[in-house]
Amino acid sequence: MSGDRLSTAEVRELDAKHVLHSWSAQNAITPVPIASASGASFTDADGNTWLDFASQLVNMNIGHQHPKLVQAIKDQADELCYIAPAFANDKRSELARLIADRAPGALNTVFFTNGGAEANENAIRMARVHTGRHKILSMYRSYHGATSTAITATGDPRRWPSDGAATGVVHFMGPYAYRSAFGSTDQEEESRRALDHLRQTVQLEGPGTIAGILLETIVGTNGVLIPPAGYLDGVRQLCDDYGIAMIADEVMVGFGRTGEWFAIGGFDVEPDLITFAKGVNSGYVPLGGVILSDRIARTFDDTPYPGGLTYSGHPLACAAGAASIKIFEEEHILENVRDLGERVLRPRLEKMAVDHPSIGEVRGKGLFFALELVRNRDTREPLVPFNASGADAEPMARLMTACKERGVWPFSHFNRLQIAPPLVISEDDLVRGLDAIDEALSVADGYYAESPA
Amino acid sequence: MSGDRLSTAEVRELDAKHVLHSWSAQNAITPVPIASASGASFTDADGNTWLDFASQLVNMNIGHQHPKLVQAIKDQADELCYIAPAFANDKRSELARLIADRAPGALNTVFFTNGGAEANENAIRMARVHTGRHKILSMYRSYHGATSTAITATGDPRRWPSDGAATGVVHFMGPYAYRSAFGSTDQEEESRRALDHLRQTVQLEGPGTIAGILLETIVGTNGVLIPPAGYLDGVRQLCDDYGIAMIADEVMVGFGRTGEWFAIGGFDVEPDLITFAKGVNSGYVPLGGVILSDRIARTFDDTPYPGGLTYSGHPLACAAGAASIKIFEEEHILENVRDLGERVLRPRLEKMAVDHPSIGEVRGKGLFFALELVRNRDTREPLVPFNASGADAEPMARLMTACKERGVWPFSHFNRLQIAPPLVISEDDLVRGLDAIDEALSVADGYYAESPA
Repeated sequence: MSGDRLSTAEVRELDAKHVLHSWSAQNAITPVPIASASGASFTDADGNTWLDFASQLVNMNIGHQHPKLVQAIKDQADELCYIAPAFANDKRSELARLIADRAPGALNTVFFTNGGAEANENAIRMARVHTGRHKILSMYRSYHGATSTAITATGDPRRWPSDGAATGVVHFMGPYAYRSAFGSTDQEEESRRALDHLRQTVQLEGPGTIAGILLETIVGTNGVLIPPAGYLDGVRQLCDDYGIAMIADEVMVGFGRTGEWFAIGGFDVEPDLITFAKGVNSGYVPLGGVILSDRIARTFDDTPYPGGLTYSGHPLACAAGAASIKIFEEEHILENVRDLGERVLRPRLEKMAVDHPSIGEVRGKGLFFALELVRNRDTREPLVPFNASGADAEPMARLMTACKERGVWPFSHFNRLQIAPPLVISEDDLVRGLDAIDEALSVADGYYAESPA
Repeated sequence: MSGDRLSTAEVRELDAKHVLHSWSAQNAITPVPIASASGASFTDADGNTWLDFASQLVNMNIGHQHPKLVQAIKDQADELCYIAPAFANDKRSELARLIADRAPGALNTVFFTNGGAEANENAIRMARVHTGRHKILSMYRSYHGATSTAITATGDPRRWPSDGAATGVVHFMGPYAYRSAFGSTDQEEESRRALDHLRQTVQLEGPGTIAGILLETIVGTNGVLIPPAGYLDGVRQLCDDYGIAMIADEVMVGFGRTGEWFAIGGFDVEPDLITFAKGVNSGYVPLGGVILSDRIARTFDDTPYPGGLTYSGHPLACAAGAASIKIFEEEHILENVRDLGERVLRPRLEKMAVDHPSIGEVRGKGLFFALELVRNRDTREPLVPFNASGADAEPMARLMTACKERGVWPFSHFNRLQIAPPLVISEDDLVRGLDAIDEALSVADGYYAESPA
């Protein structure tokens, strides 16, 4: 198998010729060939190294090429790569138990998928079969994956080209105090008004038609929006009032991102279904799934569950998941997230907000933060317009370039710089990356215009 | 990570407690714990070994735990498990080239997914964006996956509980001479009438509304239905006449199952999109994808492709795919399929059909065959009714038990026993498995009733 390695030129050429890349016009991209990665950083074929402040797509929680996780994959590869979902398998059983033990309260059954989109598809199907109702309520400003129902439930513009592909989804406004859709002036008011809005939506759509309310526990790509106090409890109550399944999408925030196994654990709320992927094994092997409450699981004791996939409960993927959870505990990774998040990351970003007028708001939890960038703090005009492309998006593109030139690769979305490093990052690397971002933010400040006096 | 292996009792107990299995009522199943697998067989925790005549879910084409493929996965695990789809990666580039080189004619671009359902979801999206039309025509008696649009396009009863989840799919009847929907008496007539039916369907649905015609090149789970001569050419012509994308689902039959890299290569027809999964790396690491014609790929040169997933082009999965293709060539696996299929499998099944009255029809190609089992050859009454469950399904359940007791684990669906062993199976193992099935078929014969004279 060796002796025929591709040169970097060949990697580029074959990529351009034969690979279609996600979410992109192919002529508009020049994919960087990555040669290696380790811990919190990755390196291209020319030897340029970046601190991975995006954890790739907010999945590389355990860091790149963790030696123990690599070893666990190699051990399982030697033992058994695959067996069909109809059989039982030790790694699948073990991971299901490890997940159930860490999920809130009475969520004890796991249905495994290949990733987050399929997890949300299946959670929605479970809610529909369990309730006998069809409609799903999901938030504007959300991302739930790219298969038909998942993309229809998504509340960002990636949904638009697939509008009409799936049925039965209604979007509502979630809490977002900085840009309130309800005229709120503080978090408490935003929480209350967003709940009123959701309750009205439920009533107007018809409670008896609604199978589930799907939301990201903390909205990820669309802004690191932490729900204000009381909001998730209110959603739980609303679901209880009307027999609606509460579905918490933890694809991005599950498995340590916020310093909890599941972000919803930090709010002390118990949903009916949790979806996960990414952090479960950091994407070393594709894996996702749904955790079902006992009540919903019982629905499928005697009624066949109408879903499945060839790779459900894939042994190699599950072995990586089980090993990852153990490594998290051995290496106190959740503790690292809480410590660095509160002691280093949040204070430093708040300090940056003092120094950089372009930072309109800092928000986040654990090792997951967003800087909401503006041209003016009074008007809150975003640094780039919603869903900007081309020349309109240039200020953010220039900021990202400035970060990358300084050796850090953050996550950007619309007018936000988002920070989501591997959860194993050292304090030194975290500070070094923040220093780079601090410098780069002068690019954003250059677009700032004081309000007329 | 070691020293804490689960006992077999724990594997069973945790599976029952924490794992939701696909397509099943959980109380109705007792998943067998599998301890190991090698080549064409797998072994449970009690040491029972079966010849895998199903290749698990018709995906284990290269056989279980192929040492070279395991080694390739371990090597890539050491090198780089994951990098995001936005980057370029050597294994992704290499596999894309290997696939493009083996795909028919002008199909040269690959979009990678995690599995077959996502492959079909994305192929349908590509057809819709490319044509600017919404409707998809797909066959009754088909399976395309379990995400919303994939399950809506599916033509078997697994679709029913999710009816209404996605939009814009219309089902048509494909050719199936043994149970013709068109009153045909031979394959030639069936081909012609099925094409007439499809052309009328296109006209009545409105050609200008139809984005794609989706079909399995050879219908897999729903019967190993080989399209009669002229049928696929006729579909191609119809697509050309009306600017409709022809989508060949090769998730089950691609990568060697019929002795060709792609089954459609055996019909000398060039579709616009091919979907694949399973055999591409035998499921050692979850992987699937879509191969695009140059014409459709060009659509996404300047228009962003509206789809993506975190694990698109997963390096570990792609490394397994590239290694698998090379092993297929080094070990002449396609040649083995053609040789064993025509020299051993087909003649033996045709001999069985002479000996067993319950065999109504033998059909297949390569190492993919179905025995259509009947209670009477004149009426063609199936051994069990369509979509039978419970007591109605008992004759097939008894037949399967008889096979398993004799050490062979075939694939069954409705009234059919389907045979799809790993493509590396030895002649001895193949014959041994067929001997077992030959014996077991006396169970099916027991339900046979001669027609009254």
